[in-house]
Amino acid sequence: MLAVTILGNNSAIPAFDRHPTAQVITLDDHLFLIDCGEGTQTQMNKYKIRRSRINHIFISHLHGDHYFGLIGLITSMGLLGRNQDLNLYGPPPLIDIFKMQLEVADTKLPYNLIFHPLKEEGIMVKENRFQVSCFRVFHRIECWGFIFEQIRPPRKVNPDKARIAGIPAAFFDRLKWGENYETKEGNIITNVSVTDPAPKPKSYAYSADTVFNPLVAEKVAGVDMLYHESTYLKDLEERAAKRFHCTTVQAAEIAKIAGVKKLLIGHFSSKYDKLDEFEKEAREVFPNTHLALEGVSYMVP
Amino acid sequence: MLAVTILGNNSAIPAFDRHPTAQVITLDDHLFLIDCGEGTQTQMNKYKIRRSRINHIFISHLHGDHYFGLIGLITSMGLLGRNQDLNLYGPPPLIDIFKMQLEVADTKLPYNLIFHPLKEEGIMVKENRFQVSCFRVFHRIECWGFIFEQIRPPRKVNPDKARIAGIPAAFFDRLKWGENYETKEGNIITNVSVTDPAPKPKSYAYSADTVFNPLVAEKVAGVDMLYHESTYLKDLEERAAKRFHCTTVQAAEIAKIAGVKKLLIGHFSSKYDKLDEFEKEAREVFPNTHLALEGVSYMVP
Repeated sequence: MLAVTILGNNSAIPAFDRHPTAQVITLDDHLFLIDCGEGTQTQMNKYKIRRSRINHIFISHLHGDHYFGLIGLITSMGLLGRNQDLNLYGPPPLIDIFKMQLEVADTKLPYNLIFHPLKEEGIMVKENRFQVSCFRVFHRIECWGFIFEQIRPPRKVNPDKARIAGIPAAFFDRLKWGENYETKEGNIITNVSVTDPAPKPKSYAYSADTVFNPLVAEKVAGVDMLYHESTYLKDLEERAAKRFHCTTVQAAEIAKIAGVKKLLIGHFSSKYDKLDEFEKEAREVFPNTHLALEGVSYMVP
Repeated sequence: MLAVTILGNNSAIPAFDRHPTAQVITLDDHLFLIDCGEGTQTQMNKYKIRRSRINHIFISHLHGDHYFGLIGLITSMGLLGRNQDLNLYGPPPLIDIFKMQLEVADTKLPYNLIFHPLKEEGIMVKENRFQVSCFRVFHRIECWGFIFEQIRPPRKVNPDKARIAGIPAAFFDRLKWGENYETKEGNIITNVSVTDPAPKPKSYAYSADTVFNPLVAEKVAGVDMLYHESTYLKDLEERAAKRFHCTTVQAAEIAKIAGVKKLLIGHFSSKYDKLDEFEKEAREVFPNTHLALEGVSYMVP
């Protein structure tokens, strides 16, 4: 299972009850946080995201609407007694800012904050069941996108077959990951006899803030679901370019060139109160486009 | 007129829809902001506080729940096209943090941010109609309280007398500040003949985060209204002391010793969902105590 839950879908200034950028990725049992605008910890409370399950946080760039909420989140995690490691990935100066903020507050986190500075494109995290890689996008300052990929998704347990074979439900989770079951009598029930093959691994790309550039499509080519910013409607293409952002149509073009299955658009400018036109315009170019709405979880197809 | 509007009344971790510390002072035509926890700019939207009228911001200390929302507010002010000066008062390292954050974002504010490092107790701002002074309180790190005083409150215009004397309503605001009126014929209508004397100047003290210490009462002695933190109920006096905070009863004791007219209590710990007991306990010691509730404006008596 791979899905993204939107916590903030607005650009720089909070408006119309929309919040600056933050997304939570659910990849099987893992949660990841991408970007962390001001108020993200409050949004997590609202949408019941369990902070304790987040072990990896990815920050795309150092414009405030993508990270001003992070210092609050990491200090709250400390106050709530976190002790497991937290991995943080972002542009190098991020850690200097935090060090200064923790030092002046005379605060020592009760857990390890392990900082991984983003320096080159490629795989940053590789574990048994997933990998995360980063790629450069084209913004006013250094800015990174991220790709999340399942490596070996879980097999599907056939509960009827498993029960008939005498396998207790408590063992189903281990069946998902390919184990055989041994009965009390020492008989082996093979995994393939009670499970169906795993689905194709899924992938999701987050392209952060970027001006229109077909190179982005190359970098995310073939992912199942793409989040692409769409700060403006299509009539403001010039303003978008000047501010290193994209329009609806440009986001949709990237999705089309990249050959993705589903497109999410977000990072809406505070000048818009209604969002309907965003979806309408993007769908003219890429029909399977969805607005990234706060509180909603989007499944990777 | 002197009043305080509460934007955040909670301590470190946002909980139960309560927010970290922030207060807006209205002193006649001036607005001041005291402390600026994460989400303050969103609270300002919610309670329709006009950011453009704020020219002075006071930060008591560098624990995150008192300033993590400030960088978002000052950058938003820039994005919204502010051009008038903004005066910021706080512990010296505050400006270094902001400089670093603005630099990595390649952001130049379109207005002057004038930083006034807090170094010694006494008057920090003195203008025609108000003054603001600061005093040290007793917290785990360097921490400051602030006193806001009217210097010369406006006189009260008697609209009937003024109208009979032929003074147009457009001139009433100038009457408030003591001007005489000259008729077209060159006759002088004296101010005292159409106005009543100004009320006694009012004062408000904000004592920030502090352990119980009667010296605080000395520093705020005689103000009309005092805000004093009350992080815990009275049964947690030991925990309060250990964390350099106060209980209900301790806050009320300070108000009593200081001889103030009205006490506001706030900075409630996230462990409490209901607040009724706070008011009840404090009122046993100091009857004119009120909970600092978000969105509510409290008049200085």
